[in-house]
Amino acid sequence: MSKPVYILNGPNLNLLGAREPEIYGKQTLADIEDICRIEADTHGLPVRFHQSNIEGEIVDQIQEARDKASALIINPAAYTHSSIALHDALKTLDIPVIEVHLSQPATRESFRRRSYVAETATGTISGFGADSYRLAIKAASKLAQPDT
Amino acid sequence: MSKPVYILNGPNLNLLGAREPEIYGKQTLADIEDICRIEADTHGLPVRFHQSNIEGEIVDQIQEARDKASALIINPAAYTHSSIALHDALKTLDIPVIEVHLSQPATRESFRRRSYVAETATGTISGFGADSYRLAIKAASKLAQPDT
Amino acid sequence: MSKPVYILNGPNLNLLGAREPEIYGKQTLADIEDICRIEADTHGLPVRFHQSNIEGEIVDQIQEARDKASALIINPAAYTHSSIALHDALKTLDIPVIEVHLSQPATRESFRRRSYVAETATGTISGFGADSYRLAIKAASKLAQPDT
Amino acid sequence: MSKPVYILNGPNLNLLGAREPEIYGKQTLADIEDICRIEADTHGLPVRFHQSNIEGEIVDQIQEARDKASALIINPAAYTHSSIALHDALKTLDIPVIEVHLSQPATRESFRRRSYVAETATGTISGFGADSYRLAIKAASKLAQPDT
Amino acid sequence: MSKPVYILNGPNLNLLGAREPEIYGKQTLADIEDICRIEADTHGLPVRFHQSNIEGEIVDQIQEARDKASALIINPAAYTHSSIALHDALKTLDIPVIEVHLSQPATRESFRRRSYVAETATGTISGFGADSYRLAIKAASKLAQPDT
Amino acid sequence: MSKPVYILNGPNLNLLGAREPEIYGKQTLADIEDICRIEADTHGLPVRFHQSNIEGEIVDQIQEARDKASALIINPAAYTHSSIALHDALKTLDIPVIEVHLSQPATRESFRRRSYVAETATGTISGFGADSYRLAIKAASKLAQPDT
Amino acid sequence: MSKPVYILNGPNLNLLGAREPEIYGKQTLADIEDICRIEADTHGLPVRFHQSNIEGEIVDQIQEARDKASALIINPAAYTHSSIALHDALKTLDIPVIEVHLSQPATRESFRRRSYVAETATGTISGFGADSYRLAIKAASKLAQPDT
Amino acid sequence: MSKPVYILNGPNLNLLGAREPEIYGKQTLADIEDICRIEADTHGLPVRFHQSNIEGEIVDQIQEARDKASALIINPAAYTHSSIALHDALKTLDIPVIEVHLSQPATRESFRRRSYVAETATGTISGFGADSYRLAIKAASKLAQPDT
Amino acid sequence: MSKPVYILNGPNLNLLGAREPEIYGKQTLADIEDICRIEADTHGLPVRFHQSNIEGEIVDQIQEARDKASALIINPAAYTHSSIALHDALKTLDIPVIEVHLSQPATRESFRRRSYVAETATGTISGFGADSYRLAIKAASKLAQPDT
Amino acid sequence: MSKPVYILNGPNLNLLGAREPEIYGKQTLADIEDICRIEADTHGLPVRFHQSNIEGEIVDQIQEARDKASALIINPAAYTHSSIALHDALKTLDIPVIEVHLSQPATRESFRRRSYVAETATGTISGFGADSYRLAIKAASKLAQPDT
Amino acid sequence: MSKPVYILNGPNLNLLGAREPEIYGKQTLADIEDICRIEADTHGLPVRFHQSNIEGEIVDQIQEARDKASALIINPAAYTHSSIALHDALKTLDIPVIEVHLSQPATRESFRRRSYVAETATGTISGFGADSYRLAIKAASKLAQPDT
Amino acid sequence: MSKPVYILNGPNLNLLGAREPEIYGKQTLADIEDICRIEADTHGLPVRFHQSNIEGEIVDQIQEARDKASALIINPAAYTHSSIALHDALKTLDIPVIEVHLSQPATRESFRRRSYVAETATGTISGFGADSYRLAIKAASKLAQPDT
Repeated sequence: MSKPVYILNGPNLNLLGAREPEIYGKQTLADIEDICRIEADTHGLPVRFHQSNIEGEIVDQIQEARDKASALIINPAAYTHSSIALHDALKTLDIPVIEVHLSQPATRESFRRRSYVAETATGTISGFGADSYRLAIKAASKLAQPDT
Repeated sequence: MSKPVYILNGPNLNLLGAREPEIYGKQTLADIEDICRIEADTHGLPVRFHQSNIEGEIVDQIQEARDKASALIINPAAYTHSSIALHDALKTLDIPVIEVHLSQPATRESFRRRSYVAETATGTISGFGADSYRLAIKAASKLAQPDT
Repeated sequence: MSKPVYILNGPNLNLLGAREPEIYGKQTLADIEDICRIEADTHGLPVRFHQSNIEGEIVDQIQEARDKASALIINPAAYTHSSIALHDALKTLDIPVIEVHLSQPATRESFRRRSYVAETATGTISGFGADSYRLAIKAASKLAQPDT
Repeated sequence: MSKPVYILNGPNLNLLGAREPEIYGKQTLADIEDICRIEADTHGLPVRFHQSNIEGEIVDQIQEARDKASALIINPAAYTHSSIALHDALKTLDIPVIEVHLSQPATRESFRRRSYVAETATGTISGFGADSYRLAIKAASKLAQPDT
Repeated sequence: MSKPVYILNGPNLNLLGAREPEIYGKQTLADIEDICRIEADTHGLPVRFHQSNIEGEIVDQIQEARDKASALIINPAAYTHSSIALHDALKTLDIPVIEVHLSQPATRESFRRRSYVAETATGTISGFGADSYRLAIKAASKLAQPDT
Repeated sequence: MSKPVYILNGPNLNLLGAREPEIYGKQTLADIEDICRIEADTHGLPVRFHQSNIEGEIVDQIQEARDKASALIINPAAYTHSSIALHDALKTLDIPVIEVHLSQPATRESFRRRSYVAETATGTISGFGADSYRLAIKAASKLAQPDT
Repeated sequence: MSKPVYILNGPNLNLLGAREPEIYGKQTLADIEDICRIEADTHGLPVRFHQSNIEGEIVDQIQEARDKASALIINPAAYTHSSIALHDALKTLDIPVIEVHLSQPATRESFRRRSYVAETATGTISGFGADSYRLAIKAASKLAQPDT
Repeated sequence: MSKPVYILNGPNLNLLGAREPEIYGKQTLADIEDICRIEADTHGLPVRFHQSNIEGEIVDQIQEARDKASALIINPAAYTHSSIALHDALKTLDIPVIEVHLSQPATRESFRRRSYVAETATGTISGFGADSYRLAIKAASKLAQPDT
Repeated sequence: MSKPVYILNGPNLNLLGAREPEIYGKQTLADIEDICRIEADTHGLPVRFHQSNIEGEIVDQIQEARDKASALIINPAAYTHSSIALHDALKTLDIPVIEVHLSQPATRESFRRRSYVAETATGTISGFGADSYRLAIKAASKLAQPDT
Repeated sequence: MSKPVYILNGPNLNLLGAREPEIYGKQTLADIEDICRIEADTHGLPVRFHQSNIEGEIVDQIQEARDKASALIINPAAYTHSSIALHDALKTLDIPVIEVHLSQPATRESFRRRSYVAETATGTISGFGADSYRLAIKAASKLAQPDT
Repeated sequence: MSKPVYILNGPNLNLLGAREPEIYGKQTLADIEDICRIEADTHGLPVRFHQSNIEGEIVDQIQEARDKASALIINPAAYTHSSIALHDALKTLDIPVIEVHLSQPATRESFRRRSYVAETATGTISGFGADSYRLAIKAASKLAQPDT
Repeated sequence: MSKPVYILNGPNLNLLGAREPEIYGKQTLADIEDICRIEADTHGLPVRFHQSNIEGEIVDQIQEARDKASALIINPAAYTHSSIALHDALKTLDIPVIEVHLSQPATRESFRRRSYVAETATGTISGFGADSYRLAIKAASKLAQPDT
């Protein structure tokens, strides 16, 4: 069986549904995990889903993905804009890396303009709410099988 | 029959396949148009596909989309980073707007960091080559039918 | 008969009335043209009224004004903040140049702070909606006949 | 009888006519007051004309205008670019506020680029010499009677 | 009897209650003076309460406090962000200096980010409306009697 | 019984008393906890007191406070200036949030000028040493019972 | 017969001779075309000479040069400093690209400091008036025959 | 008898001798006035000596100097770095203007780097304590009689 | 027996040997630990070797070093450039602190220019691969016995 | 006989041919001197050729050129970007000054963007390798005989 | 006999009288040396007068002044704004250091705003032409005998 | 016999021991040369030791090292932060280059933050006083014999 897609979620995403729904939507992280599993099943891809508020734990999960994952989808949330540690961890991967955001950071505070993750990601999908994840799985599936 | 999705392409995209293939891939714009039509057919969506090197003509096309399109997908290319005119035109739309890029601008020259288009778009998809367009059509389809 | 006042309008102004009425007001560009003609008649001034979404066409119109106009009123819209080409074209004129804006750019996004047009204009009138144009014609009339 | 239009003048404007006539013109502040009164009469508007070199006194005058004026015209001169106190005072007004300048600040030293007053004004008129004031009174009159 | 606490209030604070109540609250400056006197009485502290719109007069009051006050509480309002003169005057004091703000400047315009007063104050209290003053008097009382 | 006030303390605050006493004072964090409990008792408020060197753990504690606390007092220490994760977590709270600092950051290195926490806090109290906490509890008590 | 050298001229260069002769000299664009043809004849090189005020048309001409030109000489005028579209188009060429300017941009406004074209050009020649073009043709000829 | 030299002193200089003597020295402003009068007597120059904490009053004094003074010496203190009003007033003078400082601003906080007064002064003398004034009078005397 | 030298390693250093060997070399962190132990033995120094991906854990280890270590060597990796928490923790130490880097940060991305650690370290050694650690132990030994 | 053209070469140009040939080409400085002499002979111009690594010596040579040279060609190399002394020396010349560069500085490190020399030069030629010098001599010859 | 005052002059000052007389005046450096000697004689001070175009030679002269001079007067010319080496050399002196400028740098190019020399000088005198030197000698004499 | 290690020392280092000993230590440059020779002897390495205050002479010495040295150690002192000429010279070397500093520049003035030398050096050692040199020789020895 093929290696799973790792889906990593950064700080405060465990509050989804409750936190600022006008920005982040009403779906909970569990809802998003369900959406991801359903979509991944379509492509025959297993999924590992993590969330952590601790920058270093996300680094650990990225490192784990080096050998164990076929692709990595990451919503780095607040760490998008401040974490060189995530940047460095992601640069060690040889698998596709897809950055996702529920909202559109370009429309928010200016400190959300720079993404250290985008600089190391294969691609970025933002602004579609939970659908950003679904699209990311589609993209990951395509990247794994480019000639399909 | 439903209104078409407008797919607008900015300057130099007519050279795709020939121009810097290590950044933009080997597919031509005609190839991408085909990919878009195939994907859109799946969703029962007609497509209008444009390309222009002239900023003001793209403004014209965006304006035309106000009444005639169900969604707008735009790869603004070089105008991404300099065109307030595109920004202003896009802000007048009530339909979904999806910004796409073949490459990942965050990994390139620093003058490609700011996107005036992202600040007015529903969402952004970048870095997946021609697949960025295919995902954008999927996203557009979903946005048109949020409860599906 | 005297030379006309050229009134040039930049990108997206053809959408006036429809586009963001809370910022730009409810009047259409045709309404504004009427206001201008009525005001200009009072001063015995003919009017030439243009709109274009294309930066280079506005440059063409400015150049045409060098010989054919008695004064030039310009609402450069989005090109206010990005067009050195307009700046250079305006610097070649020996007639009064009046920059107008419907809204007050200083109260909006920070990228609207700099006006390349203001640096070459005789004067600027902003924030009065369609009345900015009416005042500009009065100013132009006065500049043409300073001792009146 | 209707409330007067307050016309406030900032530091060094009492020197008009003597100070740098190539920038500010040859008219004295008394000449400008005359021009204002003549123009205001046309509109049936009384006028109160002040000048002060002291930032805090101009704040006082703005505060006085809250109850006593139908509109406020202000040439903040040097305080345009440095006074947050004027900015804050002007934000408390519910009447039209019109910023005027004799010269065109955008063509001068870079420290004259930012106007704290423009950020709170209804509109701005600059570059027409004494005629900036005359146009401001016309604008104020129009703002007081928008349907005329 | 002990020296009074000086409580100085900067430009536009005389408008409190009327000016932007959603930011500054509904209490007038007289209400705040009452709150201060009641709180100060609890600590056996007399109070001198001033307000001025003129930067130089606030400098005068700060200088007067050098010999006559046991502590100084200052809400510099707009001068917080622009006045090096206040900064210099405050640096000459040997008594506790407490900066207060009704609102939270960090949440407002970027020009309110820098406080020249905070750089010379013992402490700062912001964001609690009129209660910022009450807390400042408590802080001043404590600073005067550190071992209590 | 009412919900407790959460008092969160960021990195290196466990060293208080030992670390740079000329900046942070001689009291230990246990001393400060005592001061807080004594003050809170006066207001009939229970207290939960935490310290962590790990950014993500402080995020966890903030999240916990959403349901369990009546107010949150936070001394974010070094994370004040770098943590968007704290900023995002705090924005999800509906209870009063008070930022405290023992020292006055404005008088120290320039990288301590920006507070991501202040941008989401109800109010900020800085510079009073351990007394900053005591004042914060008073403020919290007042915010919980605004009409008292 | 060999492919021609393309000589492209940006906005407002059609006004040469009339526009600011103290900066740009007295020669018209037709004079410069003559100078170019005479010089090119010496080297046995045919010449194609274009001018446009429209950014996108210059992009078109650059694209045409990919197959049809032996070298490209471009005076991008105002677009030098703002056009990423020209930058992108020029990067697709495999032939020598020479940027020319009549004046010396480094001695003018600060917004003329950055050249997006220089970053993609083989070389740059500026400050020699019409002679900049003559030297550019000599340079192009040499680049085409490096061993001569 | 000849016109006097005006010697203007800005905010907080009335505290000299008391305020931060390690920076500003031990002499009072009265001592400095004595030094100035003694030095000026040597050159047969009368002296008018002013001090004000109010920016606008210093503007008044500068304006008065236009007709009544043979030279102007100014220690603008804190207003050095923030006052465009002083800058504008000084630009209206035709007499020598000498900026003096007791201390050396370049060695202090970075906000003391820019002098708006230096940009309009004939010359600047800083860092010599009270002797800066004595030297300024010598300089003024020389400027009044250049051939001596 | 003497206190050990603490050698702390930041995020992603556990991947050494695998991660970007062209930048960081082929040696693993275990290899480096061996090199350190061999070198430290020469100087009769025990060694404690840690690695963590979590910023707060490194803060914990620094704090532990306050009493238990004779010197601290730290390769802060990505946290070099973002962690004020490390900066603050290091400032509490009285023992020698040596910052090491395998690569030369000055030759890499511009966000690696600033080191918050260097601002609190006794010295810095960078660019020598694993040999940076060996030199750091020599330096630490010398600092512990300055007269040798 | 006419005065010679001075050709000055800055630091490290004595290494040409050896130093980074992919940027600077394979020709030595002696080769370039030969090319210059051959080209100058064509125009009947004598040549003086200098190289120095010392900024002040190049200043000396520029000063010498004031009386002795008919034109000055300078490749300031590293001093291009840092030397105000060269800038000042060049501003004293009344003869044509031509700045040359072998490479195209705009394509290299950002610290090579600013040229202090370009701000005082008649013209600049860059990017053509040794041919930059040959073209500079042609330009100098033309400038000396503008009507030819 | 007392130690001499060293008077050091930076690059291009040997051209005085010839170079830009509208900025630097008509006097030659020899004239200034005469003025200095005459003034110094009045104070019984010997003088050593140097000029060099070479930064390092001026460093040498400053170092020589450590033991041999009673005071140092320096006109660093272009090196004012770029030389950290002069800054470092001057910081090693225990004698008075006076920076002089003939012109007023604050009125010229923005790169002349920062003086690395002012940050280490006792005082600065600028803008008085040759008289800047005469005043500097007076200042040096006073500093050497503060109680006179 | 093997080629020597070149040890180059920049401006003002000849003053070591006398200049600011609290920053640079008490050892003279001769002491440091002794330390270097003793350490180098251990590794069988000859040493060439230079010091110059002149930027261009250090460039000469770097160039000389290209053929004659086995490694280069450089303490560029003030030129660290301003010399692109040193940067360019060092880039031409194929031997190891080690930058050393006695102090820790990151803890000093902000203009000491950037090192143009670090960007071309193999490694950097700073903050250990004279021991920085000893460690550099050890590093150079290791680099020359990587497998030892």
